Amino acid sequence: MKSVDLIGVGMTKFGKHPDETGRDLLVKAMEDAVSHVDKGIDIKKDIKALFVGYFTPELFEHQGHIGTLAAEWLGLSGIPAFRTESACASSSAALATGYWAVASGMYDLVMVSGVEKMTNLDTTGVTDALSIAADNVFELPAGITFPGLFALMAQEYFEKYNGSWEDLQAVTLKNHYNGSLNPKAQFHAEIASIAKKIAVKKGVTFKDDMDFLKSKYNPLVAYPLRLFDCSPISDGASVAFLASSEISNRFTDKPLHVKGVGLGTDTIAVSGRPDLTTSKGTVNAANAAYKMAGVTPDDIDIAEVHDCFTINEVILSEDLGFFERGKGLKGAMEGRTSLSGDKPLNTDGGLKSKGHPVGATGIAMIHEIWLQLRGEAGERQVKGSPKLGLTCNVGGSTASSMVFILERGEK
Amino acid sequence: MKSVDLIGVGMTKFGKHPDETGRDLLVKAMEDAVSHVDKGIDIKKDIKALFVGYFTPELFEHQGHIGTLAAEWLGLSGIPAFRTESACASSSAALATGYWAVASGMYDLVMVSGVEKMTNLDTTGVTDALSIAADNVFELPAGITFPGLFALMAQEYFEKYNGSWEDLQAVTLKNHYNGSLNPKAQFHAEIASIAKKIAVKKGVTFKDDMDFLKSKYNPLVAYPLRLFDCSPISDGASVAFLASSEISNRFTDKPLHVKGVGLGTDTIAVSGRPDLTTSKGTVNAANAAYKMAGVTPDDIDIAEVHDCFTINEVILSEDLGFFERGKGLKGAMEGRTSLSGDKPLNTDGGLKSKGHPVGATGIAMIHEIWLQLRGEAGERQVKGSPKLGLTCNVGGSTASSMVFILERGEK
Repeated sequence: MKSVDLIGVGMTKFGKHPDETGRDLLVKAMEDAVSHVDKGIDIKKDIKALFVGYFTPELFEHQGHIGTLAAEWLGLSGIPAFRTESACASSSAALATGYWAVASGMYDLVMVSGVEKMTNLDTTGVTDALSIAADNVFELPAGITFPGLFALMAQEYFEKYNGSWEDLQAVTLKNHYNGSLNPKAQFHAEIASIAKKIAVKKGVTFKDDMDFLKSKYNPLVAYPLRLFDCSPISDGASVAFLASSEISNRFTDKPLHVKGVGLGTDTIAVSGRPDLTTSKGTVNAANAAYKMAGVTPDDIDIAEVHDCFTINEVILSEDLGFFERGKGLKGAMEGRTSLSGDKPLNTDGGLKSKGHPVGATGIAMIHEIWLQLRGEAGERQVKGSPKLGLTCNVGGSTASSMVFILERGEK
Repeated sequence: MKSVDLIGVGMTKFGKHPDETGRDLLVKAMEDAVSHVDKGIDIKKDIKALFVGYFTPELFEHQGHIGTLAAEWLGLSGIPAFRTESACASSSAALATGYWAVASGMYDLVMVSGVEKMTNLDTTGVTDALSIAADNVFELPAGITFPGLFALMAQEYFEKYNGSWEDLQAVTLKNHYNGSLNPKAQFHAEIASIAKKIAVKKGVTFKDDMDFLKSKYNPLVAYPLRLFDCSPISDGASVAFLASSEISNRFTDKPLHVKGVGLGTDTIAVSGRPDLTTSKGTVNAANAAYKMAGVTPDDIDIAEVHDCFTINEVILSEDLGFFERGKGLKGAMEGRTSLSGDKPLNTDGGLKSKGHPVGATGIAMIHEIWLQLRGEAGERQVKGSPKLGLTCNVGGSTASSMVFILERGEK
């Protein structure tokens, strides 16, 4: 297996992009990525293949065949290109495909990317589009959608490990704080600042963050999850360039090495699982990635984990082995996952605050690891020169899990 | 790059399957594939990852996340799985992904598959669903759909090379004849037999095949293409198992070796192309596959080429280098592409007669090459022990092209 390096990343700001289609967002993300290749890249000469993660262009843009369309739009028409889909893990599937394509020796440099253009539809339309990541035979007829599915996980977690919604707000507050330091985050704001804006607008007062989070301005979505436990509806795109380690120094002296790759799945319908506080998909993916990388969870300096709902950051932090079973929530409450903690999670604000254009999320996680491991994360830079970073991107109710471990090169 | 072998294939009959969903069709195709592994396969133990090509489950079944769903349905929940999409080349994208995953050394055996469940929708619904393989900004607003796009190609071909619709019927007649010998074909019937049925039912007479093909029972769809120039709307699924050559003899003594892999793209909108009688995507894909395999078009004994419309078999036969420019139609008329010709094309009846459940088509082509190279194609077996077979599966108006070259092993 050939060694593979990450040589550049890029992304759009996440949020509403009313004037741009998915293909336009991909162009912006690619331009950003090109600007992050230290020694430059000639896209027409250097990029040998393109893989695009997009969950459902069919329902969001009434457009399919998006891999080939993107190749054309990016000025790369002619090269191998196709789309990968695994619900909210669609761009991690593109990354895995690109990884194998380079590791096999077939291509020496590929572009992997993700995009979702969601704000075309109203909330009902988005809810319907996202619902097809669940099982339309066994789940949707019951009327349940994703906030409800993750609410079931939260209920089981709280019951099993004696936690509460109040405890969970440690995740909300942390991720909004991190997002306030990330200019590309959709919510570029702490909870306190959001509360202040609402207070001014509505002529009300809040004693503190928790007073706001318990107010009617943070309404219940699916018990026990409230609005600020949920990631937002977003537009955005993300891009990464993968190159064979044999040629990566043509592009940068500071590549990241792709050290571990692991994928796993669980039942689509949560009714098929004996325990909602874990996913065998994540456990399988993490085990495979750790084994390939020859590292343990303790070796990981920073991680991006899929907090589509706050509870999922906690569950993943346990499935990935960062905390023992039932100890993840406590870890968050103790600040161990904050920027200055011993296991910083979602330093870019996570899906919660950065935004979650679903097809773009997996590679946006890679984007943050790139910045952090290279010491380029600005105000949110983790201290101590982190060397090993991990991403865990999931699809549906954690029915698909994809884990990547990246290491700072020492060239 | 590790050497990769094909160790078994399977497919459902193509046609209408009113009682089965896409996931059910995949199960049937997998069961068929398992039965074709000479020395047996233990799916739970042996299959390390799954890739599923499906063009648009979103629009046909209101279901996404189909890779993970398929893993569960096939009894493989837990393993790495995702979907690939490249319009009608979606399962060739799964095959390419699986090829790279094994060639890289990541997995020693993977299942690749394709499926489409189209007959849920009426003709208008199917036309709408398929239309998203074209460009929804630059083509669909003009009101054109695929029969119209391929009709433009036929018009340009006839004008440029002095051909006619009557000439093109050599392809229709050949593929229906081949399909009449294929029990899994949707139209398991020659044109003469279809004409006879209609004659009996309607109380009319036809002098011969051409008299029928020129009649109102073969109506114009988009000038110059008529109904029997178009592939049908179909349900179906196809499966192949790929294994590292290091372990393939555990499963069979007669594997096929994956000798060449090539992918390419062209503009999605045909307005971007200087010449409609060729696709740079096919030329790129073919060149890459021939170069990797170290063979020329003349070395290919049999090929499956994407005759979604009859004209496309002719165009692809030239883009693949089987015939000089402008000579493909003449080659078909002279019988050179028939079962007993020097370059048999679409020995299983092609998309035209076998059916075209779009996501399943690429791997169904591989299925036919498997049978022919192993001498197991029954009544339609090509004489002379063919050794090298090629598939060319395309998406949209040949905006995506994927070419595979398979060789009979000599173990």
